[in-house]
Amino acid sequence: MADAITLAVTPGEPAGIGPDLLLKIIQQPLPCELVAYADPDMLEVRARQLGLALQLRQPNGQLLQPGELAVQPVAMAHPATAGKLDTRNARYVLDTLGLAADHCQAGKVHGMVTGPVNKAIINEAGIPFSGHTEFLAERTGAEQVVMMLASDQLRVALLTTHLPLRAVPDAINAQLVKRVLVILHNELKSRFALPSPRILVCGLNPHAGENGHLGREEIDIIIPALEQLRAQGMNVRGPFPADTVFTPAVLAGGDAVLAMYHDQGLPVLKYQGFGRAVNVTLGLPIIRTSVDHGTALDLAGSGQGDPGSLLTAITIAVHMAKAQRTP
Amino acid sequence: MADAITLAVTPGEPAGIGPDLLLKIIQQPLPCELVAYADPDMLEVRARQLGLALQLRQPNGQLLQPGELAVQPVAMAHPATAGKLDTRNARYVLDTLGLAADHCQAGKVHGMVTGPVNKAIINEAGIPFSGHTEFLAERTGAEQVVMMLASDQLRVALLTTHLPLRAVPDAINAQLVKRVLVILHNELKSRFALPSPRILVCGLNPHAGENGHLGREEIDIIIPALEQLRAQGMNVRGPFPADTVFTPAVLAGGDAVLAMYHDQGLPVLKYQGFGRAVNVTLGLPIIRTSVDHGTALDLAGSGQGDPGSLLTAITIAVHMAKAQRTP
Repeated sequence: MADAITLAVTPGEPAGIGPDLLLKIIQQPLPCELVAYADPDMLEVRARQLGLALQLRQPNGQLLQPGELAVQPVAMAHPATAGKLDTRNARYVLDTLGLAADHCQAGKVHGMVTGPVNKAIINEAGIPFSGHTEFLAERTGAEQVVMMLASDQLRVALLTTHLPLRAVPDAINAQLVKRVLVILHNELKSRFALPSPRILVCGLNPHAGENGHLGREEIDIIIPALEQLRAQGMNVRGPFPADTVFTPAVLAGGDAVLAMYHDQGLPVLKYQGFGRAVNVTLGLPIIRTSVDHGTALDLAGSGQGDPGSLLTAITIAVHMAKAQRTP
Repeated sequence: MADAITLAVTPGEPAGIGPDLLLKIIQQPLPCELVAYADPDMLEVRARQLGLALQLRQPNGQLLQPGELAVQPVAMAHPATAGKLDTRNARYVLDTLGLAADHCQAGKVHGMVTGPVNKAIINEAGIPFSGHTEFLAERTGAEQVVMMLASDQLRVALLTTHLPLRAVPDAINAQLVKRVLVILHNELKSRFALPSPRILVCGLNPHAGENGHLGREEIDIIIPALEQLRAQGMNVRGPFPADTVFTPAVLAGGDAVLAMYHDQGLPVLKYQGFGRAVNVTLGLPIIRTSVDHGTALDLAGSGQGDPGSLLTAITIAVHMAKAQRTP
């Protein structure tokens, strides 16, 4: 690879908004070379539909000119229609992800940025698929991954992700707290250029359990785990009440927040970073960022989608790749 | 009462920051008459300590002049020292609350605004006390109360409040959802001047259960309850994923959000409204608002406390009293 950062981009569901957003953002100068892992015909059809310039070329490690896009061709089974899901293209979506992940591992690209997919249509096609993150963890052999959402101002990682609320308390144990915090600590160092990351950890219960009056997981699990990590030199603070940790005075003392579960951490992140929030998967051997929105089938082909999240996902992946390159 | 709105104010814990904040805000013109339910000597000592003007007078239904404060004397057992809790004054704190609530019910004042108390010191004094809200519910005979936090931009009510996270799912049932929403609907109408309130309801599980894949409480409990309320003409929307409901497009369609539990709703509210968030108790026969912060013993007597939350609590109570007066 030449000097520019090269990122694989998977536009995701071809009937969705992913291709639109990619075609929109390449009309402006970008801080990297983007390689679309996608069907070139689909991209050209969509560009014409949107009235946007598109000059496809081979990946060559050089920055793109406006209107230009590098492509790694992956063939679709059936032409896509914006707004209409088609089970025949479910395999194609996973092919693009798999190839991009393989190229990341092989060092052909510096990282990958994923557009939105539709889980249901992939499952309907008879392919078990529970999400990008799980797919990439399996493909790259990662044992533990951590979902982190980031905006320009906040980073929120999750201890548990897509579990019914009822299942959350029993899913939390000291081993998980330590494994996730070690990954978060290490990647904030290696990929976010933070030599001594400060992590703010939420309690599980309201008021962080209020000394055991509102739940004992803080006393029994979280506090001892944090003490062990501190003894190893990690700067982990808390557990904080979730309605205190996101106030300016506390946030100012941290580089990232670890929430115990999905709805404890993400509402603030999405409120603060709306339209510019990005999903970063930590714990993979590769760099992977993603948009934080869905396929928006109703907007696909209309040109009305907001590319803010995709653009931020690219920007953050570039920063991560540069931080990794310069130790 | 004369034309001005008259509010009872309980400064709360006399060793805490409550008296300081009250003495600070009366230095400016206020939209109501404030009557401190407090020990007059304590107020005078604290005013001297802070170097603030204080002219105590009887309640007379007239707006205050800057530096003036109406007082309803309640005697303390022992002089208070800023920053030092004293079990001997625990009973006094509850006396001020009880008298203010009684005067609200008797129509002597239009509502009450409460400063911060210290639960632990009251319990240490041998008096069972689990919080303002529960105390006032019992004192006024309210069967079901609803905790709502409000800032200048957001209103977030809670279905459940101070429960360990583990206890939340089993605490949720259709009867509770309906009772709380009826109270919220009725009080948004009567006390917030919203003739047809629009309420956005969160799901319990991440992604609002994702059609049952991430929990069934939405399907089994929340959705049927909302359908019944809609059939009665109430504008209740959802259930929404908690990380979607707080985005601008969704928020624009609602007057209040109902979160299923404490840490699902309050982090955003406190993030957005920091320093100006207010706790409003709905379902009482009286108007009651409160600061959203604690006693801040370390700041008491220093004059450094931020009176933003108390001032907003007063402003909102005045609006509520006016809305109630003009049907």
